[in-house]
Amino acid sequence: MNIELNVTVGDLKGRMQLTGKGHTGHTVPIDYTPPLGDDRGFTSLELLMVSLASCSGHTIQFLLGKMGKKLEKLDVQVNGTRRLDVHPTVLTDIRLQYALKGENLDGASVEKAITMAEKTYCPVWAMIRNNVSVSWEYTIR
Amino acid sequence: MNIELNVTVGDLKGRMQLTGKGHTGHTVPIDYTPPLGDDRGFTSLELLMVSLASCSGHTIQFLLGKMGKKLEKLDVQVNGTRRLDVHPTVLTDIRLQYALKGENLDGASVEKAITMAEKTYCPVWAMIRNNVSVSWEYTIR
Repeated sequence: MNIELNVTVGDLKGRMQLTGKGHTGHTVPIDYTPPLGDDRGFTSLELLMVSLASCSGHTIQFLLGKMGKKLEKLDVQVNGTRRLDVHPTVLTDIRLQYALKGENLDGASVEKAITMAEKTYCPVWAMIRNNVSVSWEYTIR
Repeated sequence: MNIELNVTVGDLKGRMQLTGKGHTGHTVPIDYTPPLGDDRGFTSLELLMVSLASCSGHTIQFLLGKMGKKLEKLDVQVNGTRRLDVHPTVLTDIRLQYALKGENLDGASVEKAITMAEKTYCPVWAMIRNNVSVSWEYTIR
């Protein structure tokens, strides 16, 4: 069983400003850093990092819920290293730092949820597998 | 030579609403579809599709510029197929439809630029390589 997803990217303005739109009608501003662009939005690589952080965050929240743990706060700091000297100028390395707060949260459950997201459940994580090194850590508040 | 990129995802609200923030301070609303979420933003997989479309669009614009072609309009329609019956529920297939308008644009130049983006220059495309089938077509307006 499959579902279809549809988004648009367009409305070119300025030098490289674009607008992304999803199924809800919400939009996201996209641009490139100067001097090529005008810095009026996310870069594409930032959006990829946001995609990975939110996908893994949602997956962790869902898995913790299955373990009877209700997440009350979730913040993810994402750091990526982009190489510039060889094309394609990919992110070679992404570090995810999860900060979580919730009822009865314990390290063993959080580690289990993050590991299950990484290995089995988070689709964005799976879609960059073997192409980018991804590491993670967490704190419980 | 490398550069560091930093984004945050957090501010959990409702059931699964999150906010992504990039280096410019612009934000993007993220959510999950009902019944798990409230549909008040992009899903993570939509953001991945937006990231690929904008990265490849910017790369194509840049490469056409190097060929002396100035892009005036760029619109990308992205369709993705997500499998639901096996975890991780990845996008197995993404189709990109580029609609372009510009001075002296010709099919040979556009095909060359898209092929160079796909094979060599677009970092997001490279970061999902071998994990997702990506196809493309274009129209010149």
